[in-house]
Amino acid sequence: MQRLHQTDTDTGDPPGYPSNAIFCRDHKGQPFTFEAYLEIVRAFHGHVAPGLVIGGRMVACGMDMLPPGIIFDACCETGNCLPDAVQILTPCTIGNGWLRIVPLGRFAVSLFDKHEGEGVRVAIDSRRLAAWDEIAAWFLKLKPRAEQNAERLLQQIRRAGDDLYRTARIRMQPELLVKEHLGRNRICPICQEYYPAKHGALCRGCRDESPYLEARDDPEVRRVRKTAANA
Amino acid sequence: MQRLHQTDTDTGDPPGYPSNAIFCRDHKGQPFTFEAYLEIVRAFHGHVAPGLVIGGRMVACGMDMLPPGIIFDACCETGNCLPDAVQILTPCTIGNGWLRIVPLGRFAVSLFDKHEGEGVRVAIDSRRLAAWDEIAAWFLKLKPRAEQNAERLLQQIRRAGDDLYRTARIRMQPELLVKEHLGRNRICPICQEYYPAKHGALCRGCRDESPYLEARDDPEVRRVRKTAANA
Repeated sequence: MQRLHQTDTDTGDPPGYPSNAIFCRDHKGQPFTFEAYLEIVRAFHGHVAPGLVIGGRMVACGMDMLPPGIIFDACCETGNCLPDAVQILTPCTIGNGWLRIVPLGRFAVSLFDKHEGEGVRVAIDSRRLAAWDEIAAWFLKLKPRAEQNAERLLQQIRRAGDDLYRTARIRMQPELLVKEHLGRNRICPICQEYYPAKHGALCRGCRDESPYLEARDDPEVRRVRKTAANA
Repeated sequence: MQRLHQTDTDTGDPPGYPSNAIFCRDHKGQPFTFEAYLEIVRAFHGHVAPGLVIGGRMVACGMDMLPPGIIFDACCETGNCLPDAVQILTPCTIGNGWLRIVPLGRFAVSLFDKHEGEGVRVAIDSRRLAAWDEIAAWFLKLKPRAEQNAERLLQQIRRAGDDLYRTARIRMQPELLVKEHLGRNRICPICQEYYPAKHGALCRGCRDESPYLEARDDPEVRRVRKTAANA
């Protein structure tokens, strides 16, 4: 499998990074140049978000460190951008349950053996950020978005390559390796929809957790809710 | 824009549903036959999950009910399968923040004007499920997976079309329309990584919320953690 192109850490402007160099790759080993990856990002995410570009390299870095052929799950420590890099380059998605988000607010992703829990973590290295002023300005919100130079930011991400990241071997907490089973469904007496019986006598949506504005003061709904609560 | 093919609710086996009929479409109006959609599902999700097939039709149903040209966000009431249908057919993804998951355990998705909060909700209709025995067996886990007939299940989903769903106009809770801003970052004194300053003196990962098994009893980490907690 082709490894990622190693770049220098020079901060000067002349590229020196050939435009046909491999920037990242997917789990099948399919390599992408920087431009090719930007196209995929645009198609999936709607726009070229810097975090998703950085994320692509981080995910590819992580995959390079895993034993070949391993079946892995992914964990993102932020819900911003990074999960989409995982979904673009790996088989792990939010909907198939192989990607989870633990909202710690750190820009880090881990990939690990889905049964044993052993794997790698790739994170932005705070000590290396200073060498890339446009990346630092964006990541640390040092200047308003209108003053950021989007093209210069992208080129720094491209040229930084692996220089921006720290990696570590990790092992997941055992409880995170266990798939939650929803068990049997039952019909909610208020909305008449199926929901996991283990949630209780009413579905969560009819128990004040609804994301919708509803006729909560409807007397009939109040009556059913009260009866169910006393059951 | 081409509307979805309306199917009959007949439960007999002869298809009567032409294989070139449109099963669902994406937000740009690009139509997909059932087979074409299955191919996309396989590529993104790894396998043809029945919930994701059903979800594709639900999302397309919802989009048909929105005013043309509306910029919408999405909300899934379950994290299982359905979010991937949203990510495949709309610009809303977990990483760009236009898709959120509210874990109510109901198989329902809503699409709504991202500013005003008005939109539609599409859910499995519990009363109509009985007419489709293989779908009911899968959805309600009435028989072990080994006894389910995967091909018959898929064909029932295809033939059911819109007959399986209930739809409603909804309006989102105003607090769900407000984007959470993470604000300034600071460096965590333990892991030396950036995290949202508003999380407190230590990042959540160093405050017992880490998904990783770590040397929690390291005396130096204990000392820093104690100092930070008293700060």
